[in-house]
Amino acid sequence: MPGDFQIEKLCDAARLARLPTAHGAVRTPVFMPVGTLATVKGVPQAVLEELQVEILLANTYHLYLRPGAELVRDLGGLHRFMGWDRAVLTDSGGFQVFSLASLRTLTEEGVQFRSHLDGSLHFLSPERATAIQIALGADVIMAFDECTEYPAERARALDSMELTLRWAKRCRDYFQAHRHEAPGLGDAPSGGQLLFGIVQGGMFPEVRAECARRLVDMDFPGYAIGGLSVGEPRALTYEIVARTLEHLPADKPRYLMGVGTPEEIVQYARLGIDMMDCVLPTRAARHGLLFTSEGRVNIKAARYARDSGPLDPACGCSVCTRYSRAYLRHLYACHEMLAQVLNTIHNLAHYLDTMRRVRQAISFGEFIRAASGVSSLGEHRE
Amino acid sequence: MPGDFQIEKLCDAARLARLPTAHGAVRTPVFMPVGTLATVKGVPQAVLEELQVEILLANTYHLYLRPGAELVRDLGGLHRFMGWDRAVLTDSGGFQVFSLASLRTLTEEGVQFRSHLDGSLHFLSPERATAIQIALGADVIMAFDECTEYPAERARALDSMELTLRWAKRCRDYFQAHRHEAPGLGDAPSGGQLLFGIVQGGMFPEVRAECARRLVDMDFPGYAIGGLSVGEPRALTYEIVARTLEHLPADKPRYLMGVGTPEEIVQYARLGIDMMDCVLPTRAARHGLLFTSEGRVNIKAARYARDSGPLDPACGCSVCTRYSRAYLRHLYACHEMLAQVLNTIHNLAHYLDTMRRVRQAISFGEFIRAASGVSSLGEHRE
Repeated sequence: MPGDFQIEKLCDAARLARLPTAHGAVRTPVFMPVGTLATVKGVPQAVLEELQVEILLANTYHLYLRPGAELVRDLGGLHRFMGWDRAVLTDSGGFQVFSLASLRTLTEEGVQFRSHLDGSLHFLSPERATAIQIALGADVIMAFDECTEYPAERARALDSMELTLRWAKRCRDYFQAHRHEAPGLGDAPSGGQLLFGIVQGGMFPEVRAECARRLVDMDFPGYAIGGLSVGEPRALTYEIVARTLEHLPADKPRYLMGVGTPEEIVQYARLGIDMMDCVLPTRAARHGLLFTSEGRVNIKAARYARDSGPLDPACGCSVCTRYSRAYLRHLYACHEMLAQVLNTIHNLAHYLDTMRRVRQAISFGEFIRAASGVSSLGEHRE
Repeated sequence: MPGDFQIEKLCDAARLARLPTAHGAVRTPVFMPVGTLATVKGVPQAVLEELQVEILLANTYHLYLRPGAELVRDLGGLHRFMGWDRAVLTDSGGFQVFSLASLRTLTEEGVQFRSHLDGSLHFLSPERATAIQIALGADVIMAFDECTEYPAERARALDSMELTLRWAKRCRDYFQAHRHEAPGLGDAPSGGQLLFGIVQGGMFPEVRAECARRLVDMDFPGYAIGGLSVGEPRALTYEIVARTLEHLPADKPRYLMGVGTPEEIVQYARLGIDMMDCVLPTRAARHGLLFTSEGRVNIKAARYARDSGPLDPACGCSVCTRYSRAYLRHLYACHEMLAQVLNTIHNLAHYLDTMRRVRQAISFGEFIRAASGVSSLGEHRE
């Protein structure tokens, strides 16, 4: 049954598990590539399959604006629309409304905003965001939350958390009344969508704890930690994640939104996080920044112009086994589209390999440091 | 042996043949996708292999400027540089010098010009263009010619043709003295590069005939027809091609440069052309213009927004079997990179399928009209 989270092995706080969905089981800890507009920029779906991607993230805000949720629903849902029959998660749109849209007016009811594309006026509420996600038909959908800004005072974080909780209840109620409307359920006799709640609470552990406890009372099939990686020091992120996890049920999936570097996703898995997403591997790739077992490679650097070696000698991906650093540097220097395509494929391979090693380490009972590189880059969300 | 052109079947003037190269035999008639900077824009080499591409074209002018021929040679030649072990043809650079570069000064010795990229000063001559192509190491290389402008008076066409002939001899002499310098010959024990001559002569059949006869006297392993598709009416192109072919040896490959639409490449094969190249399928794809068995599809049109059918129901390519017109339209409307990637894959599949049907028709002795579509689009070269 979708949502029947199966933990197979523990290694301290880290968990090896499977999240069954209507489009296949997702092995966790998992990194979810970001496919904002129902495409991982530049990468054909067949290549994502070769990379053994089991779940993608798509952005509700972007898909709501283009091509529109009704259109996607009428065409059979996101999976059929994008030719992808593995799992998809959609965010709620809240993060983008608060980061991309302009002229926001926040009320108890929801958020009025103008599109970042054409300035047109729109309104999202818990009900509307849930309805859109039901129409899109992703396997995992997210409650509409307010992503608390950083820094925020305690009182502000508390108010924002309370709003997120009231909205979470409205999302849950709307979802329970309308979940049967999701497209493509006929294709998935084993069940439908899963709605996850999101923990907010700023950088205040006790506010986070309160939010987590009251969300758990609402009994979601999974819980996300939102509102992190918003500019705070990394040590604080770790602390908030660790302290929040104490208040989330051990038998449900835990999703940390919008992180991180290869090193960080290993550390979050160690803390007990099951799911992560980040635009970092794909966005950095498009800017020529590549993650390898030997550290970061800025492929535009002149020193790679005559480097006939593979990008990452330890990587078995289709880019590292075929092309040289010199060729990748040439493509990037010439602004060739293939640069972005190949760079993205490699960075995703690196992230997915990293998580594969994490899962292996957990299964062997020895969660060694599995990942690459040295320095930290911060996190990013589209 | 490379260049040992094997004609397997004739059907009127059309020929089914194989051109052996140091990187595999090329079945002709063949359409060669354009990979200007050692990449078919946006398409990984593995996908080109899946499409059964047997020979690619790369542009000497562009590769000379970036990354430079010496760099490519030092890294083992074009094949190793771009991770492609099937055949490659390089043009001579002449066409781009006359169409892209600025401040050209033409002398008997060669052409001085400024780069279209940074205005830097360069010089190409028959010897220099041949040396560059030897360094690049393509399987088929082209004599450095002057592409006569259109329209041109008879006297001008004659002068230009004479220059092209003098240059062809210099190319041949240089090639014979330096062909052993090509990189990667150790990888190809069966032999090295082939240098083709190019017939010029404007729109004057008797000038073309003269040029062809005198080139044949120089005994090239293959002959190209250049200086067409430069703005003249299509009927005139056909006439010049047909009248020129009369003067080219039946047992050597004939390459018509820079053509054409799917309908036209079928017609040129019917006339007895063996090899063609054109940026049309790849460039049009990037602008959302797709060739299908049902005619042209302008994928950005609003009428495809909700079209759940395949781009071309008769096409078995990886795009048509997986994605809908609605999805392709969405990607294009959102300026997503995957739009250009998928559109290019489909258009190339359409061109390659067209030529595959042409070869089948010849082998069955019934060269029926094999291709798609209706209208003409003209030809383009990068």
